[in-house]
Amino acid sequence: MLEEMLKNVREKSPLIHNITNYVTVNDCANVVLACGASPIMADDQKEVAEITSICTGLNINIGTLNTRTIESMVIAGKKANELHHPVVLDPVGVGASTLRTQTALKLLKEIQFSVIRGNISEIKTLALGSGTTKGVDANLADKVTAENIHEVVSFAQEFSKKTGAVIAITGAIDLVCNENITYAIYNGHEMMSSITGTGCQLSALTASFISANPDYLLESTVAAVCTMGLAGEIAHERLTPLDGNASYRNYIIDAIYNMTPKQLQEGSQYKKI
Amino acid sequence: MLEEMLKNVREKSPLIHNITNYVTVNDCANVVLACGASPIMADDQKEVAEITSICTGLNINIGTLNTRTIESMVIAGKKANELHHPVVLDPVGVGASTLRTQTALKLLKEIQFSVIRGNISEIKTLALGSGTTKGVDANLADKVTAENIHEVVSFAQEFSKKTGAVIAITGAIDLVCNENITYAIYNGHEMMSSITGTGCQLSALTASFISANPDYLLESTVAAVCTMGLAGEIAHERLTPLDGNASYRNYIIDAIYNMTPKQLQEGSQYKKI
Amino acid sequence: MLEEMLKNVREKSPLIHNITNYVTVNDCANVVLACGASPIMADDQKEVAEITSICTGLNINIGTLNTRTIESMVIAGKKANELHHPVVLDPVGVGASTLRTQTALKLLKEIQFSVIRGNISEIKTLALGSGTTKGVDANLADKVTAENIHEVVSFAQEFSKKTGAVIAITGAIDLVCNENITYAIYNGHEMMSSITGTGCQLSALTASFISANPDYLLESTVAAVCTMGLAGEIAHERLTPLDGNASYRNYIIDAIYNMTPKQLQEGSQYKKI
Repeated sequence: MLEEMLKNVREKSPLIHNITNYVTVNDCANVVLACGASPIMADDQKEVAEITSICTGLNINIGTLNTRTIESMVIAGKKANELHHPVVLDPVGVGASTLRTQTALKLLKEIQFSVIRGNISEIKTLALGSGTTKGVDANLADKVTAENIHEVVSFAQEFSKKTGAVIAITGAIDLVCNENITYAIYNGHEMMSSITGTGCQLSALTASFISANPDYLLESTVAAVCTMGLAGEIAHERLTPLDGNASYRNYIIDAIYNMTPKQLQEGSQYKKI
Repeated sequence: MLEEMLKNVREKSPLIHNITNYVTVNDCANVVLACGASPIMADDQKEVAEITSICTGLNINIGTLNTRTIESMVIAGKKANELHHPVVLDPVGVGASTLRTQTALKLLKEIQFSVIRGNISEIKTLALGSGTTKGVDANLADKVTAENIHEVVSFAQEFSKKTGAVIAITGAIDLVCNENITYAIYNGHEMMSSITGTGCQLSALTASFISANPDYLLESTVAAVCTMGLAGEIAHERLTPLDGNASYRNYIIDAIYNMTPKQLQEGSQYKKI
Repeated sequence: MLEEMLKNVREKSPLIHNITNYVTVNDCANVVLACGASPIMADDQKEVAEITSICTGLNINIGTLNTRTIESMVIAGKKANELHHPVVLDPVGVGASTLRTQTALKLLKEIQFSVIRGNISEIKTLALGSGTTKGVDANLADKVTAENIHEVVSFAQEFSKKTGAVIAITGAIDLVCNENITYAIYNGHEMMSSITGTGCQLSALTASFISANPDYLLESTVAAVCTMGLAGEIAHERLTPLDGNASYRNYIIDAIYNMTPKQLQEGSQYKKI
């Protein structure tokens, strides 16, 4: 299944409109290129509708949101909905400030998202309308474990039902679900959390995958999550004793660039739960 | 010829004012440093005239333009003209939105540029006032080939005559011309298009070269284009099977850092056409 | 002494709020992660007070300041003061424009900083209210040498007394002082100046160190400066003939990631003067 998803990204090379933060934007652009898609970043209210119109998909990330760009997100999201383009929401740090929470809830209300991707604390905040987010990392108390996984799954499926979006909760174990089906994904490496923006990169990657596979939102999101996690594993094996998080960042993007559909198919560790 | 151009950059170490996008800005700064010049980024309307005044050259890139920074571009450009500083325009994605097209045309009208650098679709849009740009990459239909090269050359020379600027059209074959003379440059590697911002980097590099060689705008632009292309070749030879676009990005900047005038002279592949 | 400082960063993993420029922000985030702390970037006036409240320390960098973010810096700084959080000021390019000078002086007036870190030209400008800054690099005439070091020390201690902040003047020789005690630090490598943002990175690192060691502002600032300089040395030894400033950038962050307290203790070259 995943094999085809990556093949389609490389063959169709969808153009992805990103309204994202200035911290990890360069890595997001290079990740989109690495998987075979093409990025464009544009956030001015006067051009976002037009830019979205020439693209195949839209990725909205609230990482360094501000009053100017929030309005741009709404305009672009509505235009993408009108054109039936897939739209990803990455609610970075939602719950860490009232502005982030209100913005994310406003976006949820005004835009139909195809996929919502965040860590467990962010998704909980979105679903409950207030949260326990500490900064941009997941709160330890929220961690998905073998013990609470079924509880998290039913909560995520409920949220999927409410929003009509595929929900991707990423962490040590990743969960991707729609309202009926959930996949658990076991790829990845804990050192990925020592790099800024692996979550943002995954959201940009997800936008690329679902734009090339619009009829398979759930499966292509699983493919994107597996690609990122597997790249994290491949890159980790490549580390020498002198390498740290900066080289690891580069190696992960390199691994996505070099990933073949066959490699993805064979290296992915996921199952329906 | 090119040997001297690079020598001058390293000896004079010109300070370059960049008003550029937030996607590739870090790479632009490191490329300016790699070639021996010094970067400063500043985009507030209240300071751009002063910043330009202490610099030797100005690089304007509309990659993630917004209402606030467009005005800053105009102010800085006019001040640079007043001081007879060289100014580069990189019309990223012009034609992809009305805002980009109108902004680029406004900049062309209000500022005398020394060099305008873009892909063929961007330059066509600028020259014709409307275009076929798809995102930030050149439209395939616009591609410069052995068959249409003379047509493109006469169009580019015409545009140079109209604007008074050296025109640099970069792609598989690069063309650099003023109204009378055109150089074709054959350096580079196709994998460079898998990295975000090699175009932006080249514009920042060009600003560095022309600022150190203000009496040789055409030749120093050729030198900058050759430096970037040759760095792309050297970096490509260095790639191991596990390397991808992220490592390639670093290796290109590394190659610029290590490039000697002799190496540039010997590795450049260009001719008057 | 320094051993404990780094241990505390790794153990406490303080969350650091950064209001910084879009040029080097990604490297700042990765450096904060590399040393064991956690970064969050947020610059909208509506959220900076809340974001600072959930953090342990604040890092203010005026690298690409604009009217919108200047106000955010003031709000965040006042909130941090109210909560007794350590605050770092990095007055990038102060003296290069009236806006930068006025902003830095305004920040100094309204916020009590814990540490002010800059090159000698920037610190002189701050102390004197006007300056000789050429761009973002130190003016050669200002260079700290064996001959003028005692003069610089008494000037820096005077400025520390006036501001109540630890002063860190970084260059070939680094000086870190409060009003009574000065340390000179001899770590580092001249090639570090060929990378954009090593100064910004050091400020983010300093915010991490002082936030984990709030009762030892002077000593933890020395530890941060030694960490950065030692990482520059370790990374330089790792360079191959093909490596340049881009790889060096990655290797420095890698070296911070891998630095052990013992390595820092043994590799640091500093003395009270």
